[in-house]
Amino acid sequence: MAISGLGDTGEEKETQRVEAFSDGVFAIAVTLLILEIRAPVQHDIGSDGALWHALRDLWPAYLAYIISFATILVTWINHHAIMRLVGRTDHTFLLLNGLLLALITAVNFPTSLVAEYIGHAGERAAGLTYSGIFLLMAFAFNIVWRYITWDGHLLLASADPERIRAIDRRFRFGPLYYVAAFALAFISARASLIFCLLLAVLFALPYTGSRQERFAAGAEL
Amino acid sequence: MAISGLGDTGEEKETQRVEAFSDGVFAIAVTLLILEIRAPVQHDIGSDGALWHALRDLWPAYLAYIISFATILVTWINHHAIMRLVGRTDHTFLLLNGLLLALITAVNFPTSLVAEYIGHAGERAAGLTYSGIFLLMAFAFNIVWRYITWDGHLLLASADPERIRAIDRRFRFGPLYYVAAFALAFISARASLIFCLLLAVLFALPYTGSRQERFAAGAEL
Amino acid sequence: MAISGLGDTGEEKETQRVEAFSDGVFAIAVTLLILEIRAPVQHDIGSDGALWHALRDLWPAYLAYIISFATILVTWINHHAIMRLVGRTDHTFLLLNGLLLALITAVNFPTSLVAEYIGHAGERAAGLTYSGIFLLMAFAFNIVWRYITWDGHLLLASADPERIRAIDRRFRFGPLYYVAAFALAFISARASLIFCLLLAVLFALPYTGSRQERFAAGAEL
Amino acid sequence: MAISGLGDTGEEKETQRVEAFSDGVFAIAVTLLILEIRAPVQHDIGSDGALWHALRDLWPAYLAYIISFATILVTWINHHAIMRLVGRTDHTFLLLNGLLLALITAVNFPTSLVAEYIGHAGERAAGLTYSGIFLLMAFAFNIVWRYITWDGHLLLASADPERIRAIDRRFRFGPLYYVAAFALAFISARASLIFCLLLAVLFALPYTGSRQERFAAGAEL
Repeated sequence: MAISGLGDTGEEKETQRVEAFSDGVFAIAVTLLILEIRAPVQHDIGSDGALWHALRDLWPAYLAYIISFATILVTWINHHAIMRLVGRTDHTFLLLNGLLLALITAVNFPTSLVAEYIGHAGERAAGLTYSGIFLLMAFAFNIVWRYITWDGHLLLASADPERIRAIDRRFRFGPLYYVAAFALAFISARASLIFCLLLAVLFALPYTGSRQERFAAGAEL
Repeated sequence: MAISGLGDTGEEKETQRVEAFSDGVFAIAVTLLILEIRAPVQHDIGSDGALWHALRDLWPAYLAYIISFATILVTWINHHAIMRLVGRTDHTFLLLNGLLLALITAVNFPTSLVAEYIGHAGERAAGLTYSGIFLLMAFAFNIVWRYITWDGHLLLASADPERIRAIDRRFRFGPLYYVAAFALAFISARASLIFCLLLAVLFALPYTGSRQERFAAGAEL
Repeated sequence: MAISGLGDTGEEKETQRVEAFSDGVFAIAVTLLILEIRAPVQHDIGSDGALWHALRDLWPAYLAYIISFATILVTWINHHAIMRLVGRTDHTFLLLNGLLLALITAVNFPTSLVAEYIGHAGERAAGLTYSGIFLLMAFAFNIVWRYITWDGHLLLASADPERIRAIDRRFRFGPLYYVAAFALAFISARASLIFCLLLAVLFALPYTGSRQERFAAGAEL
Repeated sequence: MAISGLGDTGEEKETQRVEAFSDGVFAIAVTLLILEIRAPVQHDIGSDGALWHALRDLWPAYLAYIISFATILVTWINHHAIMRLVGRTDHTFLLLNGLLLALITAVNFPTSLVAEYIGHAGERAAGLTYSGIFLLMAFAFNIVWRYITWDGHLLLASADPERIRAIDRRFRFGPLYYVAAFALAFISARASLIFCLLLAVLFALPYTGSRQERFAAGAEL
């Protein structure tokens, strides 16, 4: 039984632990984000109207929550899509994957900066830090993927070459998009935020257009 | 072995990862709620009596904890009940499920508003926000369910049509109940809280009346 | 394959989801405890000696961390020991188990009270609250166990009656011990803390004395 | 089916629950670390430059995050490497493993001290506490490993003696390295931090030098 790491040590089990650990980190990172939306301080609030006002002023926190949640969720979806093709791990892979997880966890901090500083002095620094962490994430994701496909020793023998090329095409330009988001933050932190939201939507789209193929892509998970 | 996503890619495995990730988010969201009950500030407390007093004044925080915990727990139970009927996923499903998870995680914030503002100015705004997030959750849960049953392509071939109809009947009116909770919060935030607690109890009831059937319902999990 | 909840729905799978969810809540509850040990405020600290002093004054926070961690860990061990005998669940079981999980999560709050108030005014209230939550946990654990064994319909057919009686003997007096811890807190909050620590150690002991039997008890997990 | 703890109670399943619980605690501990990097307080920031300045001054928090994340990640990798050789558990093992998990969770607190106090009065106390918790972790890890290999009753019959000796060699000196890190903190807290970072890198290296063997080591996970 493969689960307990015994007996038949066929290819199919070797990535299970790292996937379970990664899933845990993704799930916790995405859930902790909500702690960065903080209730307005009570003694500043004198009426229902004042609380509505204060809640409305928290819009950068809501927006940052949505973008960060969506981006990490989509990264999780794509992480699993590539892990489907991987049959074994080595130390380097574990460390590169650990680097990716550290960056995903770290998203929480720039999210809190956006929540706090958009609409205030420091807005641009917050926007640059926020798009910057996504840029680092996109790089780390690419490095993980490139290491997997480098000489193919981690890939399943049965991994479909066509599928590998499709993922290659998809992820190749990921960092470029986030370079654009980062550059945009120099001009306008808010525009950069919206662009990051659009990128999450873009990467959330299925790999292929037809219903049949979308279905197959979903089945990857 | 299905777990590692290899070899036999029979229907039975395709929802496992999304269920594990969802379970993680549910478990973390429900556990983080306790962080919104905060210890009274030490320098305000001069005696045991003062601490008891301060602890008693935290009743809205305790109540909000109980309601949010119960509502998320029941949503988790129902989430698994419907996932039992689902044999595969596609991208749209993953995104709709992600939307539901984002709302479940977000419950933490209105919970902190109720903890802070019930009994103070801003009570109504807190009550509306709190019942409002549950209303959005009920909508999202319905959308997920409707997408699953839409043309049936995600359902297991073996899914019992009678059971599907029973779930249909059960969830159809969920959003309506929470519209009522939301409307009630305009009149009284506290009444709306109690109503939300009753709804959690109502949805916690087994689907069917007889012991035999309750047993079967439990076995779904 | 039982894991995905399909095909062969033999007894052996029906408790898996609730165990995985429970494990998640236990693991998160135990890990969040560390957040209640807070770094001394920086501007109060003028030297290394002052920081050592401030760190020493945090001893109630360390003690509360150790007791809460140990008590939840032991409850997790015992939870699994009883789940080994359970072959199926029903709605009532899920709700009673949810009640137990809500109390385990809630331990975080009285832990923060002990961390803050031992050695200050309010010490007794903190001690009573802390031992009180453990008393509620012990009650809830007993209720879950009693429901399981009530008419036996949740037990595995193969569950060893001798083992059931051993667990019965073990848990019957759990609440009584915590009644004592609670009563002791009226006299001395610190003595009650030490007693709670001893109880965690007591319940951590294997069920039976001999090496052979300890081994068997360990194997239950 | 072994997963549900029923029927065939072959060796291969008995450690699964404790591994899943441990994985959960590792994943949460590592993710909570980010909460110790706190956004600069808004009303102190008058411009983008001021926020950049404030973000730069948080370098001890970033460094502590990286070291703690890397050290816990590597401990997780090594934890799994040894659990691969373990076929069953007993109560003593569960408690020793619980002690290790409590220390891993506790890393969060000294991490917050380093984040707060490096570069301020109290720097040395922070450095000593930080390297001290890693020293305790290294001791606890050794105790767990020594208990496993003590009389061999927890080891799998199929565990490779050569591999056991390799792990023995590897972990024997772990505590000594952290004694050095601790001693170094008396002289310079910053030097001790860098040394802890190097140790995480050292322990991240695969057990053996050749590509073939690195591959095999990775496959252990």
